[in-house]
Amino acid sequence: VISGVQVVGLDGDDTLWHSEGRYHQAQQRFSEIVARHGEVADLDQRLLAVEQRNLGLFGYGVKGFTLSMIETAIEVTNGGIEAAEVKALIDLGRGMLEEPVVLVDGAAAAVKRLAAAGYRLLLLTKGDLFDQEYRIAQSGLAPHFWQVEVVSEKDPATYRRVLGRLGVVAAEFLMCGNSMRSDVLPVLEIGAAAVHVPYHLTWSHEVAGPPPPGARFAEIAALSDLPALLQ
Amino acid sequence: VISGVQVVGLDGDDTLWHSEGRYHQAQQRFSEIVARHGEVADLDQRLLAVEQRNLGLFGYGVKGFTLSMIETAIEVTNGGIEAAEVKALIDLGRGMLEEPVVLVDGAAAAVKRLAAAGYRLLLLTKGDLFDQEYRIAQSGLAPHFWQVEVVSEKDPATYRRVLGRLGVVAAEFLMCGNSMRSDVLPVLEIGAAAVHVPYHLTWSHEVAGPPPPGARFAEIAALSDLPALLQ
Repeated sequence: VISGVQVVGLDGDDTLWHSEGRYHQAQQRFSEIVARHGEVADLDQRLLAVEQRNLGLFGYGVKGFTLSMIETAIEVTNGGIEAAEVKALIDLGRGMLEEPVVLVDGAAAAVKRLAAAGYRLLLLTKGDLFDQEYRIAQSGLAPHFWQVEVVSEKDPATYRRVLGRLGVVAAEFLMCGNSMRSDVLPVLEIGAAAVHVPYHLTWSHEVAGPPPPGARFAEIAALSDLPALLQ
Repeated sequence: VISGVQVVGLDGDDTLWHSEGRYHQAQQRFSEIVARHGEVADLDQRLLAVEQRNLGLFGYGVKGFTLSMIETAIEVTNGGIEAAEVKALIDLGRGMLEEPVVLVDGAAAAVKRLAAAGYRLLLLTKGDLFDQEYRIAQSGLAPHFWQVEVVSEKDPATYRRVLGRLGVVAAEFLMCGNSMRSDVLPVLEIGAAAVHVPYHLTWSHEVAGPPPPGARFAEIAALSDLPALLQ
C-alpha cells in the first residue's frame, strides 16, 4: 500500500491504450520492404540507432519514427530503396496515426474507480501532440481526468514543471505507467511515488534498470490492481 | 486603445521569432531538387495540396512538412525521385529544426514592457511540440511569461479550453499574432480581443479574410506598438 496520494498520474501509450503494437507491426512491414534489397542482419539495431540519433531533433512519436524509417532504409540499401517503397513507408506512418484507439483491458474501469474514489487524475503522455490528442479524444477517458498534459519528454525537470504549474507537491503525487525510464525513475527522483505496470512489448529505448531500494515504488500486473494499492 | 485587458496572449512563430523564412527557403531547395526531373508548373500548389490533405493526420510543424515534401516529390516525379534526393529532403527538415532562433525586431523589448506593465503574458504557439519547446527555450523570453502553451490547433475550442484551464475570462484576454486565421478570428469568435501584427511572409493556409466590423480588433505594424495600444 502506498499512502498519502492525492493526485494520480497515468501514462497513455501502452498503459491506458495499446500503442507499441502499431510500431511493432510497422517495423515488420519495414523489414519486409528493406529485405527486397538484400538481407540486413542488424536492421532493428540500425533503425534504433537512427531513431536515437534523431530523438534530440525529432522528439518522440510517429512522424519522427516514419522519417527515421525512411532514413534507415536509404542507409541500409545504400540508396537502393525506390520511391514507391518510400511512399509505402510514409503510408505505414499514416496507417499508424489512423489506427483506432483500443483500450488496455481493465483500464477504463480502473480510471473510473480512481476518479470515484476522489483522486485527482492527471493524464500525462509524451509523443506527437496531434497524435496524442487524437488518442486521448478517441479513448473516451478524458472526462474522468482532472488535467491532461502532453509533454515532449518525461524527465525529472518535466515532472517538476508540470506538478509546479498544477500546484501539486511531489509527496502527494503518484505516477503509474509501463515505462521504467519515463514513468518510474524520474518520478522517484523528484520524491514522488511510482507504480510500474509492465506491457508485453517495450521499445528498447524505454528499457531501464530497477528503481533504487527504499523508493516509494510498486509493480503491478495490471492497471486494475492500482485502486487497491492506494487504499 | 483596447481596454480591460489583463492577460495578453502572444504567438511564437513569425510574431516573437522568425519561422516562415525557414519553410520558404526549404521550399526553394525542394523546387530545385524536384526540377532535376522536369519542370512542374504548379509545384507550390501541389505541395500545399499534399500538406492540407495531411494536416488532419500530421498536424502542423516541420516533421509533417518534411513528410509532405517527400510525398509531393514522389507524386510529381512519378516515382522518379531518387533515394539520395529523399535523403536531401530529410536533411532539409533537419536543418529547419536545427536553425537558430532569431527574434523579430523589437519583440523582446515589447514583451519586457508588457510584463513590466503588469500584464500576465501567455505564450501560445502551435506546431511540433518538440520544435516549439526548443524555440521557446532558445528565445530567452520564457521567464517573462506567466504561462506557456503549445497547442495542435488554434480554433475557438482551443482558446476556450486554454483560457478555462487558466481561469481567464474572454473579456480580459487579448491575443496578438501574425495569423488572421489562427491568432485573430477564433479569438474574436469567443469574445476576446485580438491584434494582428502582419509578417512579411504568410503561409497560404494561414491567410483569412478580415474580422467582422465592430470586433475588438486592431492591426499594428510591429509588436513594439502593442504596449501603447493597451494603455
